[in-house]
Amino acid sequence: MEDRVEELRRSFGQEEMDGYLVADQINIQYFTGFLGGTRLLIPKDGDCVLYAPTVNYEAAKEYVKDIEIEPIRIGDDVNSKVASQVKRWGLRLIGFDLIEASAYLKLREVIENADIEPANKLVSSLRRVKDKEEQRRIREASKLTSLGMKRAFESIKAGMKERELASEIEYAMRRNGSDGTAFDTIVVSGVRSAFPHGGCGDQVIANGDLVVIDIGAKYQSYCSDLTRTVVVGKTSPKHEDLYSIVLSAQDEAMRQIKPGVEARIVDAKARDLIKKHGYGEYFVHSLGHGVGLEVHELPTLSLKSEERLEVGNVVTVEPGIYIPGFGGIRIEDTVLVKEDGYERLTEAPYTLRV
Amino acid sequence: MEDRVEELRRSFGQEEMDGYLVADQINIQYFTGFLGGTRLLIPKDGDCVLYAPTVNYEAAKEYVKDIEIEPIRIGDDVNSKVASQVKRWGLRLIGFDLIEASAYLKLREVIENADIEPANKLVSSLRRVKDKEEQRRIREASKLTSLGMKRAFESIKAGMKERELASEIEYAMRRNGSDGTAFDTIVVSGVRSAFPHGGCGDQVIANGDLVVIDIGAKYQSYCSDLTRTVVVGKTSPKHEDLYSIVLSAQDEAMRQIKPGVEARIVDAKARDLIKKHGYGEYFVHSLGHGVGLEVHELPTLSLKSEERLEVGNVVTVEPGIYIPGFGGIRIEDTVLVKEDGYERLTEAPYTLRV
Repeated sequence: MEDRVEELRRSFGQEEMDGYLVADQINIQYFTGFLGGTRLLIPKDGDCVLYAPTVNYEAAKEYVKDIEIEPIRIGDDVNSKVASQVKRWGLRLIGFDLIEASAYLKLREVIENADIEPANKLVSSLRRVKDKEEQRRIREASKLTSLGMKRAFESIKAGMKERELASEIEYAMRRNGSDGTAFDTIVVSGVRSAFPHGGCGDQVIANGDLVVIDIGAKYQSYCSDLTRTVVVGKTSPKHEDLYSIVLSAQDEAMRQIKPGVEARIVDAKARDLIKKHGYGEYFVHSLGHGVGLEVHELPTLSLKSEERLEVGNVVTVEPGIYIPGFGGIRIEDTVLVKEDGYERLTEAPYTLRV
Repeated sequence: MEDRVEELRRSFGQEEMDGYLVADQINIQYFTGFLGGTRLLIPKDGDCVLYAPTVNYEAAKEYVKDIEIEPIRIGDDVNSKVASQVKRWGLRLIGFDLIEASAYLKLREVIENADIEPANKLVSSLRRVKDKEEQRRIREASKLTSLGMKRAFESIKAGMKERELASEIEYAMRRNGSDGTAFDTIVVSGVRSAFPHGGCGDQVIANGDLVVIDIGAKYQSYCSDLTRTVVVGKTSPKHEDLYSIVLSAQDEAMRQIKPGVEARIVDAKARDLIKKHGYGEYFVHSLGHGVGLEVHELPTLSLKSEERLEVGNVVTVEPGIYIPGFGGIRIEDTVLVKEDGYERLTEAPYTLRV
C-alpha cells in the first residue's frame, strides 16, 4: 500500500502539485486497504492523514497501520478539517480524484492560500496496472465467477424465472467464497436479451429463448466479469449464425491482446468482423473495460480509447449483437495482459446449447 | 413520475431557476422510472430530455414514455449536448443535483449565457416523502428482509462461517423475490461485532459469540434495512444487560415517532437512555436514516438533524453499543411514519438467544 502512495507522489512533479486529496471510497481503499474512510490527504512528503467517521473509527484503527487516523464526529465538517491540515502543512496546489461539485465548491471556499484541481487520472492510471496480489485476487474472483456460470449451465431450464437462476448463481459463488457480487447479476431472456443491462426479473425463461447471463463474483474486494448466452431447448439457424459471429469477434479481438497494442485496435478488430457480417449497428457498446476494485475501470477497449495495453492490465473482451424485438447475444471473458499475450481468467463453455 | 417532475418544478420559483439538470442515476430513476440514463434535463415548461448511452438506448425507449430520449454515442460528450439544449431553450439558471467536480467544471465551460448551481436538496427533499406505490414496494422489500432474518435465525450455528450465514440469508431473499441486496450484507461475530460496518468474512462463528446480522432486500428498486444481534449458545449477564439497554433505547425512540416531531429528538431519546447507563461513548453513529431507492437517504435521525418527521417518511431506528475488544449489539427496524404514529415494516424476534 505504501508503494502506491509513493508511486502517486512520483506523478506530483509533472503537475507541480505538493499534495493530493483522495475522496473516492474505492480510491481510499486502494491506498489504505480500508473501505470506510471519508478522505485521505497525501502531502508531498511525510505522513498521510485518513479521515474516518466515528462509526468506522475503531475498524480503521484496527486495519490501517502507518497512517494517522482522524475521527469525523457527527456534525463535523470534513472539508474544514482538510483545510486546516492543508494550512498546517503549507500546501499550495492539491490535486484531487472525484469530489461531488458542492463539496468541491465548499472546499475551495474554506481552503486558504492553496488551489485545488481535478487530477483523477493520476490515480485511475495507477489502478490500471495490477500488482501480483491484485492479480491473485482477481484470479480467485474469476474462479468463483466461473463456478457461478457452471451452476447456471447446470440449473437453467424452461419454466424457471430469471431471478431464480440468478439466485442459484449467486448462492454458488457466495458459498464458495465470494464477498458478494461485482455488479447486479444480469439474467435476461427472450426479447429482453436485446437489452445489454436488463437486470433480471420475474420473466419466465421459455423454450427457444435466448438467455444472456452476465455475472461477477468479488474476492477480497476485487471483481471479475463473465458472460455467456444460451438457448434453452431448440436453437434456430439465426441463433447459431449470430452466435458464431460474436464468438469469432471475441476470438479475433483476443488474438490482438498483448503489451503495446492500442486498445482501440482491439475494439476495431471485433467491430469490423461484426460489421462485415452486417450487424455493426447492433453492437451498441465498447468491446471491454478494465476490471479491478471496480468492475468498470481503465483501460477501456473502445474506438475512442487512446491507451495502449500494458502488462498487468485486466480487461474484459465482450462483443455483442442486440437486435430489438429479436434478442441479444454477448460473449465475455476477463483476461490478464502478460508479457507474451494474455491469460484468460474466466472459464465457461462456448456453446449456445445447454 | 410526471407528478414528481411537476413537484420539482414548483420549487424552481424560490430559487429563481428555469431549469434543472439531474445527473445522479438514482435521481434519474426517481423521475423516469428508468435506471441507465446519463442526464435528465428538466426545463421550467415543456418536455424533458433524457440522455442515454447507446448501450441502454433501446431499453430506455421501451420503458420511458412521454420523455424525449437522446442517445449518447461512444465518444459523444454529454456536457456539450446538454449545453446545446440549454442554449436552444434559452435557459438562464439551472440547478443540479450531484455532479462530479470535473464534469461540473467542464459544464460551466461549455454552457453559454447560463449559470449552474448545486441544488440537490430540491430532489432529496422530494424523495423524503414516499407515495403509496413507493410505500408498497418498501413494504414488500421489508417482508423479504424479514424472511431473510427468519432464515438467519433458523440456520445460524456455531462452526459456521460468517459468509455461509450471509449466503443462506441472501438466497432466501432472492428466491422469494428480492432484486438483490440493498447493501453488502453484514454478518460480524465475536470482537468484530464491535465494528458497525464490518462486512462478513471467513471468520467462524463460535459458541458465546455476539453476532450482528444487518441485512436488506430490494424489491422493484426499493430498499429495506433490518438488524438483529444474537449469541449462539450461552449468553453472559453482560450480553443480556447490554441487549436490554439497546432494546429499551429502540423502544423509547420508536415511541417518539409521529408527524411533526423533530428528528434530532428521536435520536436524543435513544442516546440519553444509553448515556444514562454509562455507554454513551459507545453509541458511535446516528440513530437512523431514511430508506427508499437508496438505503441511506433523508430524513436523518441524528443529533444534528434539522428536519421534522412527516407522514410518508420511511426511517430506520437502530441504536447500538460497540465496545472495542468485547463486541457490539445493534437492533434495527425500518418504520413508516403515519398520521397516528408509525408502522413497523420489518419483523424479527427481539431475542439474544437463538
